[in-house]
Amino acid sequence: MTIQAIAEQIKQKKSMLCIGLDTDLKKLPPHLAGKKNNIFEFNRQILDATHEYAIACKPNIAFYECLGVEGWKQLELTVQYIRDKYPGIFLIADAKRGDIGNTSKKYAETFFDHFGFDAVTASPYMGSDSIVPFLEYPGKWVILLALTSNAGAEDFQLLNTGKQEKLFETVIKRSLAWGYSGNLMYVVGATKASMLVKIREIIPDHFLLIPGIGAQGGDLAEVVQYGLNSNAGLIINSSRAIIFADSTERFAAVAAQKAREVQLQMAALLSKSGFQD
Amino acid sequence: MTIQAIAEQIKQKKSMLCIGLDTDLKKLPPHLAGKKNNIFEFNRQILDATHEYAIACKPNIAFYECLGVEGWKQLELTVQYIRDKYPGIFLIADAKRGDIGNTSKKYAETFFDHFGFDAVTASPYMGSDSIVPFLEYPGKWVILLALTSNAGAEDFQLLNTGKQEKLFETVIKRSLAWGYSGNLMYVVGATKASMLVKIREIIPDHFLLIPGIGAQGGDLAEVVQYGLNSNAGLIINSSRAIIFADSTERFAAVAAQKAREVQLQMAALLSKSGFQD
Repeated sequence: MTIQAIAEQIKQKKSMLCIGLDTDLKKLPPHLAGKKNNIFEFNRQILDATHEYAIACKPNIAFYECLGVEGWKQLELTVQYIRDKYPGIFLIADAKRGDIGNTSKKYAETFFDHFGFDAVTASPYMGSDSIVPFLEYPGKWVILLALTSNAGAEDFQLLNTGKQEKLFETVIKRSLAWGYSGNLMYVVGATKASMLVKIREIIPDHFLLIPGIGAQGGDLAEVVQYGLNSNAGLIINSSRAIIFADSTERFAAVAAQKAREVQLQMAALLSKSGFQD
Repeated sequence: MTIQAIAEQIKQKKSMLCIGLDTDLKKLPPHLAGKKNNIFEFNRQILDATHEYAIACKPNIAFYECLGVEGWKQLELTVQYIRDKYPGIFLIADAKRGDIGNTSKKYAETFFDHFGFDAVTASPYMGSDSIVPFLEYPGKWVILLALTSNAGAEDFQLLNTGKQEKLFETVIKRSLAWGYSGNLMYVVGATKASMLVKIREIIPDHFLLIPGIGAQGGDLAEVVQYGLNSNAGLIINSSRAIIFADSTERFAAVAAQKAREVQLQMAALLSKSGFQD
């Protein structure tokens, strides 16, 4: 998917929302317990109910992996369903992979060839040759961890690596030699919204994937205020606060209502910022 | 598995060898092509032939993931076989995972509960709460990326983060607050053997997982010279140079021969260093 196509979706839907499919088997509504393909069934109903308010969808691979073969099957069913039914949805594998070149190539095969995701999140610690194999796929994206939403982000990402430069800034700057705004995005946690000013100075044109809205407490208005660019440039994720908002048979309808609320907030913020269709 | 049990295996087998099961479907011997469960069958024959020369085994998860459900099944068969038949083998999931706390918990479930691995490799970029969930499993291990064997290691791991301190050293130092030498090891590439002196000053007692011997060109004698401690403290991996040394029906016998050669070199180096059983 091109950067223009993503921006176009944002304009049409007046939304930057990404639905995070952190589909924890233990948190499924009780009426789905023990049912065949219940994770896929949950995801399908969530997508059917929320797709019109969202421009992206992000299964977190850990929640599928932990169930072994069965979890992997649920992920395959989910991805295939979204690809077939909602081709406009930007589909992100939240996998945070990264290894030596010949191994990262295999991870790229996993998420791009085998599954058909549009993008995969990757960890920068191992440097250029751990990321470049993902960038060699035309039309596909790497979303590189820069400044994450968790408390541990402070352990290393905020270390000084130069005069008034922190590790996450060095990560962003160096990675600009590996890709460009058409195949490389960055993860910046909503809990670090004030840092977006500095980040936008380095990468005015790149898209950012923003987790941390909702359960993690990040502020949507701040993110938009400091992060918006001419393509919107923001994909803002919410997982638990939407998909697990209700655990009755009405879970999908409640998820839709929550997604709609976020989308309306986004539409208002986009409009206020002068971002028009 | 305890640190004492690992050290005991090293003494008994006079080996620090880890067999890396980077089992690439495209590189399987032609006579296994198209056969049912051929990846498991390859791994089984490799382990049956090499186990007496090795103390550890390390499937690289990327090579299984890239085949989807089928690859995951081959990994399950492989791990179960090793667990049942060779319980003394230290079994490492080379996965390089790491995410926010509630997600890393799921990755820990994957590799420890679902599969029954002894250890998992993890990336430090997201800090403490991305690693601690793995360390909460009694008897299990995290092997944290410190200084990797690839060229890209220089991009960030060797950045100065303080007066005469580089990022990989800060990673090691800070992580000492999360675990101890009984549940935490570090990845240090064999291609960076000269750095082992500095690393042993910080962590004299911890085990190190050393990739990069063989196909990547690291020097075994240097690694032992600078890295050995009173428990040996080294698990030294070789993947392609052993498992893909031959592609005929004799592949397992040739792998055994290659493993035996490395083990003999290790036995000589252990003996020369005064490490005795």
